[in-house]
Amino acid sequence: MMNTNGREGDRLNKFRVEKDDLGALQIPAAALYGIQTARAMLNLSFSGRLLQHYPMYVKALAMVKHAAAQANFEAGLLSQAMSEAIIQACDEIIAGLHHEHFPVDMLHGGGGIGANMNVNEVVANLANEKLGGSRGNYDPVHPITHVNASQSTSDVCHTAIRMAIILSFNTLSEAVKATVEVTKEKAMQFQDINTIARTCLQDGMRAKLGEKFSAYSTVIQRRLDHLVTTIANLHQVNLGGTVIGSGVGAPKLYRETVLPKLCQVSKLPLSYRENLFDAAQNMDDLAQVSSELCLLATSLIKIAKDLRLLSSGPEAGFGELRLPAVQAGSSFFPGKVNPVIPETLIQCCFQVLGCDRAVQAAIEHGELDLNVFEGLAGANILDAMDMLNKALRLFVEKCLYGIEANKERCEALSTSLIPAVVDLKEKYGYFALAQLLKKEGPEGIKQLLRDGGDTDDTF
Amino acid sequence: MMNTNGREGDRLNKFRVEKDDLGALQIPAAALYGIQTARAMLNLSFSGRLLQHYPMYVKALAMVKHAAAQANFEAGLLSQAMSEAIIQACDEIIAGLHHEHFPVDMLHGGGGIGANMNVNEVVANLANEKLGGSRGNYDPVHPITHVNASQSTSDVCHTAIRMAIILSFNTLSEAVKATVEVTKEKAMQFQDINTIARTCLQDGMRAKLGEKFSAYSTVIQRRLDHLVTTIANLHQVNLGGTVIGSGVGAPKLYRETVLPKLCQVSKLPLSYRENLFDAAQNMDDLAQVSSELCLLATSLIKIAKDLRLLSSGPEAGFGELRLPAVQAGSSFFPGKVNPVIPETLIQCCFQVLGCDRAVQAAIEHGELDLNVFEGLAGANILDAMDMLNKALRLFVEKCLYGIEANKERCEALSTSLIPAVVDLKEKYGYFALAQLLKKEGPEGIKQLLRDGGDTDDTF
Amino acid sequence: MMNTNGREGDRLNKFRVEKDDLGALQIPAAALYGIQTARAMLNLSFSGRLLQHYPMYVKALAMVKHAAAQANFEAGLLSQAMSEAIIQACDEIIAGLHHEHFPVDMLHGGGGIGANMNVNEVVANLANEKLGGSRGNYDPVHPITHVNASQSTSDVCHTAIRMAIILSFNTLSEAVKATVEVTKEKAMQFQDINTIARTCLQDGMRAKLGEKFSAYSTVIQRRLDHLVTTIANLHQVNLGGTVIGSGVGAPKLYRETVLPKLCQVSKLPLSYRENLFDAAQNMDDLAQVSSELCLLATSLIKIAKDLRLLSSGPEAGFGELRLPAVQAGSSFFPGKVNPVIPETLIQCCFQVLGCDRAVQAAIEHGELDLNVFEGLAGANILDAMDMLNKALRLFVEKCLYGIEANKERCEALSTSLIPAVVDLKEKYGYFALAQLLKKEGPEGIKQLLRDGGDTDDTF
Amino acid sequence: MMNTNGREGDRLNKFRVEKDDLGALQIPAAALYGIQTARAMLNLSFSGRLLQHYPMYVKALAMVKHAAAQANFEAGLLSQAMSEAIIQACDEIIAGLHHEHFPVDMLHGGGGIGANMNVNEVVANLANEKLGGSRGNYDPVHPITHVNASQSTSDVCHTAIRMAIILSFNTLSEAVKATVEVTKEKAMQFQDINTIARTCLQDGMRAKLGEKFSAYSTVIQRRLDHLVTTIANLHQVNLGGTVIGSGVGAPKLYRETVLPKLCQVSKLPLSYRENLFDAAQNMDDLAQVSSELCLLATSLIKIAKDLRLLSSGPEAGFGELRLPAVQAGSSFFPGKVNPVIPETLIQCCFQVLGCDRAVQAAIEHGELDLNVFEGLAGANILDAMDMLNKALRLFVEKCLYGIEANKERCEALSTSLIPAVVDLKEKYGYFALAQLLKKEGPEGIKQLLRDGGDTDDTF
Repeated sequence: MMNTNGREGDRLNKFRVEKDDLGALQIPAAALYGIQTARAMLNLSFSGRLLQHYPMYVKALAMVKHAAAQANFEAGLLSQAMSEAIIQACDEIIAGLHHEHFPVDMLHGGGGIGANMNVNEVVANLANEKLGGSRGNYDPVHPITHVNASQSTSDVCHTAIRMAIILSFNTLSEAVKATVEVTKEKAMQFQDINTIARTCLQDGMRAKLGEKFSAYSTVIQRRLDHLVTTIANLHQVNLGGTVIGSGVGAPKLYRETVLPKLCQVSKLPLSYRENLFDAAQNMDDLAQVSSELCLLATSLIKIAKDLRLLSSGPEAGFGELRLPAVQAGSSFFPGKVNPVIPETLIQCCFQVLGCDRAVQAAIEHGELDLNVFEGLAGANILDAMDMLNKALRLFVEKCLYGIEANKERCEALSTSLIPAVVDLKEKYGYFALAQLLKKEGPEGIKQLLRDGGDTDDTF
Repeated sequence: MMNTNGREGDRLNKFRVEKDDLGALQIPAAALYGIQTARAMLNLSFSGRLLQHYPMYVKALAMVKHAAAQANFEAGLLSQAMSEAIIQACDEIIAGLHHEHFPVDMLHGGGGIGANMNVNEVVANLANEKLGGSRGNYDPVHPITHVNASQSTSDVCHTAIRMAIILSFNTLSEAVKATVEVTKEKAMQFQDINTIARTCLQDGMRAKLGEKFSAYSTVIQRRLDHLVTTIANLHQVNLGGTVIGSGVGAPKLYRETVLPKLCQVSKLPLSYRENLFDAAQNMDDLAQVSSELCLLATSLIKIAKDLRLLSSGPEAGFGELRLPAVQAGSSFFPGKVNPVIPETLIQCCFQVLGCDRAVQAAIEHGELDLNVFEGLAGANILDAMDMLNKALRLFVEKCLYGIEANKERCEALSTSLIPAVVDLKEKYGYFALAQLLKKEGPEGIKQLLRDGGDTDDTF
Repeated sequence: MMNTNGREGDRLNKFRVEKDDLGALQIPAAALYGIQTARAMLNLSFSGRLLQHYPMYVKALAMVKHAAAQANFEAGLLSQAMSEAIIQACDEIIAGLHHEHFPVDMLHGGGGIGANMNVNEVVANLANEKLGGSRGNYDPVHPITHVNASQSTSDVCHTAIRMAIILSFNTLSEAVKATVEVTKEKAMQFQDINTIARTCLQDGMRAKLGEKFSAYSTVIQRRLDHLVTTIANLHQVNLGGTVIGSGVGAPKLYRETVLPKLCQVSKLPLSYRENLFDAAQNMDDLAQVSSELCLLATSLIKIAKDLRLLSSGPEAGFGELRLPAVQAGSSFFPGKVNPVIPETLIQCCFQVLGCDRAVQAAIEHGELDLNVFEGLAGANILDAMDMLNKALRLFVEKCLYGIEANKERCEALSTSLIPAVVDLKEKYGYFALAQLLKKEGPEGIKQLLRDGGDTDDTF
Repeated sequence: MMNTNGREGDRLNKFRVEKDDLGALQIPAAALYGIQTARAMLNLSFSGRLLQHYPMYVKALAMVKHAAAQANFEAGLLSQAMSEAIIQACDEIIAGLHHEHFPVDMLHGGGGIGANMNVNEVVANLANEKLGGSRGNYDPVHPITHVNASQSTSDVCHTAIRMAIILSFNTLSEAVKATVEVTKEKAMQFQDINTIARTCLQDGMRAKLGEKFSAYSTVIQRRLDHLVTTIANLHQVNLGGTVIGSGVGAPKLYRETVLPKLCQVSKLPLSYRENLFDAAQNMDDLAQVSSELCLLATSLIKIAKDLRLLSSGPEAGFGELRLPAVQAGSSFFPGKVNPVIPETLIQCCFQVLGCDRAVQAAIEHGELDLNVFEGLAGANILDAMDMLNKALRLFVEKCLYGIEANKERCEALSTSLIPAVVDLKEKYGYFALAQLLKKEGPEGIKQLLRDGGDTDDTF
């Protein structure tokens, strides 16, 4: 039915055909991935979040395949040539190349089969080209027989997703540390400014503006510390446990070799989980990271909302702080400066809560010998970390750093009625003051203050 | 080992022994419940929330048993005497008697088996006493053979929990209506008071204080309307469907009779679900009620938090409203009045969010032919409704009703800088004013206002 | 430092400079957006989800600007030429052009200011080009003075996000309907196949396989019906209410005209909210849509998990169904076919739960006269709808449609022990059978069945 | 208006009258609490969860008051007689007496004011009686002036709620340890039983039944370990920081003394938070405990659901395990044994998720110098711990301990098709077997096995 030979030729040039048990499929001729990846794209794509958008995960997968190729060579399952070709292919991916060939949906079902086959196929095609073969032929290097040798999707993805989180955390960690530093600086800068504390949003006692910021730096530092500890747990992995932790299908020599090799490749101090069956069944270590991200997010929401409150005004609000103006705040009010950056951070944190809800579902619905929803947990954690990293950097650089105190307002508030009552309370007692307030109102208190507090006891 | 005969005699008087396939168990002699209830108490109690704390559910279960006894009589499964004795027993429970004999944990597993057996046993014992028998003998009336005839735990509990929610809603509905009414009154009362609007917590345009309250009444009314609609769906039940909706085990005559009888007993316009298999499998109708309670709660959180903000002060806050003082706000600050009632309402609403999370889990984990976690959903909905009812009544009576405006403050805010800018904007345009603000600051705007806005175009 | 004139020249060609009160900024010369958009990109981008990824929202924003231009013309605020140029610009965007010029982050803070300014600037530049002007000069058409005339970010975004959801729902709605249809067909196809029902995962009574599927179609249809109703509420909007609902800043003639115009442009039956202050303060209508999406998702999780259970095996599971094989299920087990499509749907639904959690946060933290987090709610709803749409289409086409029953297994299960007990129960009673089971075990029951149930009464 | 003197006399006997700034109130004559408690009951009760239902919290509050009385004596604020009377009163409460006099709602707003005043009043009344005074007169010991001296509700409740959680955790910890122990025993008991592993619910490789249970004990032990660490953080408190952490209102000598005294009284190694302002502002330490309880709960849900799956049957399910029968499982099916205990544990865990959601709201909505919703977080954590403790004890004793393996079924499954394929895979390779399966179906594999795997290469 196709009579335009030119076009048909073009089409043949642009596509190759691969086959599996389910039939044949056209694959873009230039694609490093193959038919299993293509099937995953056709069957399992819904989220728009592709594996290639998660470069640390792509790299970690390649590191696993690199280490496995070494271990399989030592176990006699791969020839040296094949092993070296695979390793070279992996190293290119680790170096950041070929990421555009990882198009499977990060959130596909099947326990990560699509991600594992994607990397298997890309590595196989690259390795074959190095060995003189061509894309789509899988000869001599086969994605399953060789690249995936001694492995299962289960232990590959379990290990790689944890490495990806560890690697990504470095960036987030810096952003959190910067937030701690700048809040500390602000605490110093504002340490002599008297203002008012509020509880239940009602006026309370005199307080230093710097004290509020010291609490901000303390809570963020604490959340960072806990996050660091929790992330550290992810160094315990199960590569070599194959599907359910028993290691069936992986030769002993491979199993003894693969993790040390992975430590070398990744420069991470990885070790084995105490119980590899547990590793396959349970992903509470991931869920704990997600919980910690939530606790960080919630603490940030509190701080960002405080900044909005404390900078509310100019005349009808609390007015103690001035946030830097970074853009026109309103299309309606000329001159209005809105706290757009704290609100952006707040929205980021809301998304982190959303990510955690999805992670909770993934862990809640795990069953039997393998939690097949682990990949979703990993994707949401990586998303949450990436968003927090970006929003925090904006927050620090474009808001926190430039915050200024409205000293006059702060001082005025610090000597308002309730702080005065607190001053007088120690001298006159709770009930005497409460009665004075009731009888004479605020004016009575202020008169007492003006009298230097030296009155008789008649009130 | 017991040598004080008197005590032993006492003990014998105080307990009776009942037996089932698993052995014998001591039951308090005065208990109307029997061994199945006792086993449920021993095996399945953890929450401290007992069936007896949910009087509407106890009543609804008794209504179901009443209707079933009628229908079983008509179907020839029960003699008239037995049917009448059961009905009389049920009517006492419906009238509020014997509720202390419903001690099973509301949250027990097994799909409500404990609740159904509790009511079966109490009704059987009561009926037997009426027919001359004694507690614990189940002769002539047997809890399963007669009281539970043609029923299963599944359709009994499905139907009764929905009735309980419908019946409990009347009380909540009144409380919500009262909240609407009083916010409306406040909207009227404050309709002429000028104050300021804020967006992003920053000063905005002039607004009427009453307008804010009009929005409060509108949103609560809307949430009430949706809640009413959603509750109405619960009138569709599955009594007669037995375990999975097929009606196996219930004679045709019974199935044709039981729901009309239940409508009579309960005075509720109950009808059948379109598909009884669906009714057994899915409890999304309950989850929808829970979602609606959440939406109401979230809307109330917003209002309660607004009231806290608008009454913040006296000097360092927004200060537009004064909430009634209902108790000393602080053990530390003499004369401090905290918004304790809005905060109580907020805490109630947080609990409602918690209830909904549990309901979400219950629906998420349903499987196959019957969702066995439905009872937990019912309990959390009844809890949420009860808490909202009580907290709203306190809120209306002790806070909302007595709220007063701080007119001077409101008027002052309404003529502050940004509202003035809005006034001038229509005359001079967005950019001219933005530039004036930038060049001369707030003073420039205020001068312009003092000049009556009649300046040349030099700015 | 730049000594290659050519490059510098290139650079000048590639960028233009725009200025605002905060200074100058380089803008890509070809960009239709301007400095406010560029600032939003620099200050508020963290999520990677750009406005341009939400084409229905971009279109809806353009529809609003189109209608506003008409109304502003009728109100005398825009000349005919200017109005027509703006309208023409909007129509191009509505037709799907220029979407690449909408790069602001969907989740930025500030209540949508970035999105509104993005569309204001793109429309202004397009309109100016039509009127002979050039990009970046905003003459004669100014983004704020003309494109945004009589509007605020608040009412523009409120209205447009609701329109975007309504428009996107059509696609999702079709996918849900298809799911209903195919589950109905399956219910018909399997209506004569006897199998077993299970409660608490334990064997129960005989049931038809088709009955299970009939429940699936019923629950999905019900969730669709509720979703349709809830989406319908979004037709009530507040365009003309400007910032807080009072309409300040919008002339009367504009306010009377703009919504009818928007109905024409969008072909949607939009109307006004009963109380426009409420519209600005509260976004419970959006949260309700999100809740409904969750209820749909949760119902789908149940169905997808059922399919996994019912197709578990081949030998160690329930084995009643066979799902179509769409790809190799395992990199480890040859011949293993995993339920990858139901698991993909499940993962999609987990993400929907996550989206709703973020929406919950957005509504929970709203305050005072405007909920500034509404945009985040809108984005998450659009995301959830898009993911559900795609995952459902895959589910229907590649899984549901091809499901087959394992008839032999089903029939065998339908005559296993417990169904037999149910058959015999009506004849012999609950307790006689329970005792027989206890005394003689399953063999006793089977013997009784073989005897045709005609035994003496000895057991 | 009351003319029946007798009744009036009765009434006078039964009530006393107390007064505060807001007026007079009748208090039950026998009540140890006073007017502030009574006002809290009238104004702030909605949940039915009373302070008296949380004995560890009541005790911890009394410990705080004991330590404060000592420190106030040393600081010269209390006479020795008064201090000793207060201490004696506190010790009675610590010993478990008078708990019925703590009726305030645990979930009231106002930052715990009701709880603090309740204990202040009870202690004052008890102390006065010891010093010859009478209930309701507060002379010589006054609830605020003396019992609450140098304290605020903020630091008292902050400190006491953490102590209550630490003290309650001991009980939960034992229950969790028992769960670990018994799962370990089961792992040993089942270590030689071959059965099948499943991934994606599809048949997988051969596995030992004990391996599954070893994973259960590992995950619970890990969650326990993390819980222990997280609870340990709660030893850092802020008593002496008064309202916001500055210690204003508490003399230096008191502040140096009070925490060492509290360590003595409570026998807990309490210490100060690094930053007391942070302590008042942030309750992420509590939220972290709640997150950890969730992770434990979620891990338990997985195990309980596994047990249900593995014991599903008897004929239509997985049938590898037999759970002990503890009660009749069904009112409908004679002889049916349902997994009621795992389902009870599951429902408990759902409630724990609900508790955490409420805690999340409490931390999310904290603001400025004090999180006033901390008490709600504490109550939900105590609830979650109490429910988990009870449900786990039932689970261990009545389910886990008596679980038996169905050895025949397990062995049969371990030699079914897919495990056989795994065995053959190492010899023949992934693809040869996949093709054999495709060509000859399961029978081909079985024939190959029967042939001892020694066939030619023709397939």
